[in-house]
Amino acid sequence: MPIKIGIIGFGCVGTGVVKTLLENEELISSRLGNTIKIVKICDLDTSSDRGTGIDTSILTSDVEEVISNPEIQIVVEMVGGINPAKEFLIKALENGKHVVTANKKLLAEKEGSELFKLAQEKHLTLNFEAAVGGAIPIIRTIKESFASEKIEEVYGILNGTTNYIVSKLEKGGASFQEVLKEAQAAGFAEADPTADVEGFDAAHKIKLIAQLAFGIDFDFEEIYIKGISQLTESDFAFAKMMDYKVKLLAFAVNHNGEFDIRVEPVLLKKKTELANIRGVTNAVLIRGTGMKEILLTGPGAGEMPTASAVVGDIIEIARNLIIEKKANVPALGYQNEKIRKVDLTKLKTLKSKYYVRTEVADQPGVLAKMSQILADLDISINAVVQNPTTEKVIPVMLTIHPTSRENISKAAAKISELDFVKSKTFVMPIEDEIETDPSE
Amino acid sequence: MPIKIGIIGFGCVGTGVVKTLLENEELISSRLGNTIKIVKICDLDTSSDRGTGIDTSILTSDVEEVISNPEIQIVVEMVGGINPAKEFLIKALENGKHVVTANKKLLAEKEGSELFKLAQEKHLTLNFEAAVGGAIPIIRTIKESFASEKIEEVYGILNGTTNYIVSKLEKGGASFQEVLKEAQAAGFAEADPTADVEGFDAAHKIKLIAQLAFGIDFDFEEIYIKGISQLTESDFAFAKMMDYKVKLLAFAVNHNGEFDIRVEPVLLKKKTELANIRGVTNAVLIRGTGMKEILLTGPGAGEMPTASAVVGDIIEIARNLIIEKKANVPALGYQNEKIRKVDLTKLKTLKSKYYVRTEVADQPGVLAKMSQILADLDISINAVVQNPTTEKVIPVMLTIHPTSRENISKAAAKISELDFVKSKTFVMPIEDEIETDPSE
Repeated sequence: MPIKIGIIGFGCVGTGVVKTLLENEELISSRLGNTIKIVKICDLDTSSDRGTGIDTSILTSDVEEVISNPEIQIVVEMVGGINPAKEFLIKALENGKHVVTANKKLLAEKEGSELFKLAQEKHLTLNFEAAVGGAIPIIRTIKESFASEKIEEVYGILNGTTNYIVSKLEKGGASFQEVLKEAQAAGFAEADPTADVEGFDAAHKIKLIAQLAFGIDFDFEEIYIKGISQLTESDFAFAKMMDYKVKLLAFAVNHNGEFDIRVEPVLLKKKTELANIRGVTNAVLIRGTGMKEILLTGPGAGEMPTASAVVGDIIEIARNLIIEKKANVPALGYQNEKIRKVDLTKLKTLKSKYYVRTEVADQPGVLAKMSQILADLDISINAVVQNPTTEKVIPVMLTIHPTSRENISKAAAKISELDFVKSKTFVMPIEDEIETDPSE
Repeated sequence: MPIKIGIIGFGCVGTGVVKTLLENEELISSRLGNTIKIVKICDLDTSSDRGTGIDTSILTSDVEEVISNPEIQIVVEMVGGINPAKEFLIKALENGKHVVTANKKLLAEKEGSELFKLAQEKHLTLNFEAAVGGAIPIIRTIKESFASEKIEEVYGILNGTTNYIVSKLEKGGASFQEVLKEAQAAGFAEADPTADVEGFDAAHKIKLIAQLAFGIDFDFEEIYIKGISQLTESDFAFAKMMDYKVKLLAFAVNHNGEFDIRVEPVLLKKKTELANIRGVTNAVLIRGTGMKEILLTGPGAGEMPTASAVVGDIIEIARNLIIEKKANVPALGYQNEKIRKVDLTKLKTLKSKYYVRTEVADQPGVLAKMSQILADLDISINAVVQNPTTEKVIPVMLTIHPTSRENISKAAAKISELDFVKSKTFVMPIEDEIETDPSE
């Protein structure tokens, strides 16, 4: 008996899944010892096989034909977004179907907890490898390979669009808006780029990673999220001069039971591995007490890599169904009752070196006033760069010795209020401790 | 009921496994929903707990107390070598026990096929993540995450000892023998370094990878294996001058159904990722039709990383045992009857650029005679380096346009026979096609 699946959503990734299943049918059978049959595909557009060669008679616009179909054992949700995907998955799980999804938003926001719990209660598998890093095996690695690991730190370049834009900005000569337009034209950024450029997509992914790594739950809204839209040419010029690179980095770090979960642009030493992840590539650096340090890199998105991860998830469930067993690995790797709810907002005291940039009118006393604000908050300056210029408004960039985010944010707000300051003051952590520069 | 395991071999990795299980007991339980109990540890030395704190009354020198113990569900083999490890594992499998091992030699040489078959016949799991790349999740990734993938190419830096030595040689000023001694003193090379420096260890690993990636079997003896002991300072000087790096690289490449499986030093463009894997780090670059290209890197060996991989394998089996199920993923990822036996020796025609180095007496006509040999074999020279010197014996280094290994080997043999040639001629492929230099 073949394993029977139903797919909801016949868009880009859904099409990739169908292609992968059809084109690699023989290969998959030789690994699985069985075949996988697509019983139904649900999409509003039932008119075309999307070039896959699939029999269009299995297309339907009625989702019930998938989620309540007694024949279907695995439901593959490729719709995206929270509603109605959430309702589809709840009904599918309630109907006893295993589930595969790439829907990071749904799983990482508050609806996720409900789905994860329901799956474990029903002894069903909820697989979501494709939600993070395309075909890079991040989810399965943390959940299974590192099941004995006390994971301490995870750092990720988890959004290809922003890494592409940042890589282009690094080369100089173009503004954020110009590079964004170019990325949109090249298909590397969406028409509405907000989720990517403002860091939400990376935040969804790092939430799932943090849950897997630490067995914790927390509100998505508590994640500190800053995107790349405020970056200017000055930031990249400064980074270059100081042997740094700018990266939008996602953090999931356990500081003795308090958790640093955030997404923001940071400065990384230019010779480190994460600093050299280029273009749309994603990367995850994982540190634990046993395995030491593992770096996984690859394309973080795209139709076929994402489809590959989805079909890998389907095959894992199929292998279990063949021997008629229930789910044996919880979706988040931990038993439900062992997942601790934690409060991220407590972590106020974490200190970091920071980069500070502001645009000022070129007049006397500017630096004196800025320095005084920093001094009043006990913040000590490390380096200052203000290039000679004939412009009326010039960027002033400085780096400071370690202080808390609360403190530097206060300072930045005060600096922004100075009458000669012409822009919102931008701050960005300098992360010298993540990786050692190999040439040092 | 806890999951009950027995360990054979209480050396370095066996000790790491016990440490990991005891120190992370609570963490493992919160993921597994059960506990793992070490019932017996077999070793000739039963006098000490190796600092783990384990009750020494479970130590035994009688292997039967592990492999024929009706209480034990999982046997963890940490002995190494072919005999008696093979007999232990066969008996354990025959007694219905799941097996975890890090024994790459046993699995990659001819005894491996027997063990893999026996495990699948008995519906038992034979896990061996720790056999390749320490805690880098190479085996599970290929077997599970890439279960839908048509894998095309795998390139690996799979031996930390040789990569450490090569990284040191790259810096110059020391010979292979000197660096080897230093590596032995630093604990990065064994007293008998043959298996590492002559490439056998990497070859064992690439055989297992090739089997997993392609669903093939072949004789270990058919793998082309060359180690690093013939490398000289001239090779590194040449590489540096030409913007290359020398790496001991393991290949598993599918050329339209013919398989290029080998281990040898090669020249890689210096800015590519594999060229920049430093010290004892291991790396595997995997390419497939769906996932495109994934790079996994991390420490390739060591007590705790290896133990982490072993315990990850134990937990995978434990998760299955809890729901009383049989093995669902074949040890090599493919159904036994689908594994094709292939003949590696057929791949004679594969062409590559080569680097050629020989030491010659400094006399007239040297280059003329060498060039003639190459021309007679239709081999065309790309570049020649012969530095001005006052030495009597000098290295001549040249690169040639693509030819077959058979052809360049013939040429090298003929050059070695010339009376002014004072050393065996050394050849090494130039692998420009594996990765694109990102700065180009």
